[in-house]
Amino acid sequence: MEQRITYITLGVNDINASIDFYENKFGWKRSAQSSDDLIVFELRGLYLALYPKNALAHDAAMDAGVDAGGQGFRGFTISYNVRSVQEVDDLIAVLKSRGVHVVKEPQKVFWGGYSSYIGDPDGNLWEIAYNPYLKQE
Amino acid sequence: MEQRITYITLGVNDINASIDFYENKFGWKRSAQSSDDLIVFELRGLYLALYPKNALAHDAAMDAGVDAGGQGFRGFTISYNVRSVQEVDDLIAVLKSRGVHVVKEPQKVFWGGYSSYIGDPDGNLWEIAYNPYLKQE
Repeated sequence: MEQRITYITLGVNDINASIDFYENKFGWKRSAQSSDDLIVFELRGLYLALYPKNALAHDAAMDAGVDAGGQGFRGFTISYNVRSVQEVDDLIAVLKSRGVHVVKEPQKVFWGGYSSYIGDPDGNLWEIAYNPYLKQE
Repeated sequence: MEQRITYITLGVNDINASIDFYENKFGWKRSAQSSDDLIVFELRGLYLALYPKNALAHDAAMDAGVDAGGQGFRGFTISYNVRSVQEVDDLIAVLKSRGVHVVKEPQKVFWGGYSSYIGDPDGNLWEIAYNPYLKQE
């Protein structure tokens, strides 16, 4: 696994309060890839995204009582993007072989990509994703 | 505020389990700035750090029942480093004037720097820090 992060996504309770905070108090500008409920800030070398907490938990398939690492949803995820669907499958297979807990098996997802979630020892969620709309260098 | 993050610090329950996860399962290499209880990975354009959760909560002055944004400690922080002590004070003054909740007032800290913590609307903690040992570009 290359030593990098692609996205940090904060699960937020009130998207408008969060937009006010990051845009008006921090003075940051959202990027063109933002939508109504996914606000993306391009930082130096990575993206910080804001997304409703319930939707983010749902995205990680934890709305049905699934509990990542016995600690519940932490309200944020870190994403590691790869360059193809195959690369998601291959990386998850390697991580599984090393004993990593797969929270959500690799699958096609609603936003048009293909992704899987793993948990670290504290239940911090890492998404391993292929996003056809975001070219990973 | 420039549009960047300097550090993401994950508060971990068992530092050895976390080291095993990031070094042996992800295959990452810690940087030379790591110590026994602060493990730092240099990513592309930012650092990911592992630090015992209790110590991290203490660092944000939340061990005495202080509750960031009414939601308690979330187990991670994001750091935004600046270039001087004065710049910490100036930025916190600006953020306060915009109504940002300051969780910990700017002060000298044990690791030799000067820092302050603010909370976003969900209680996600941002450290505004001057670190004399880490040159911020």
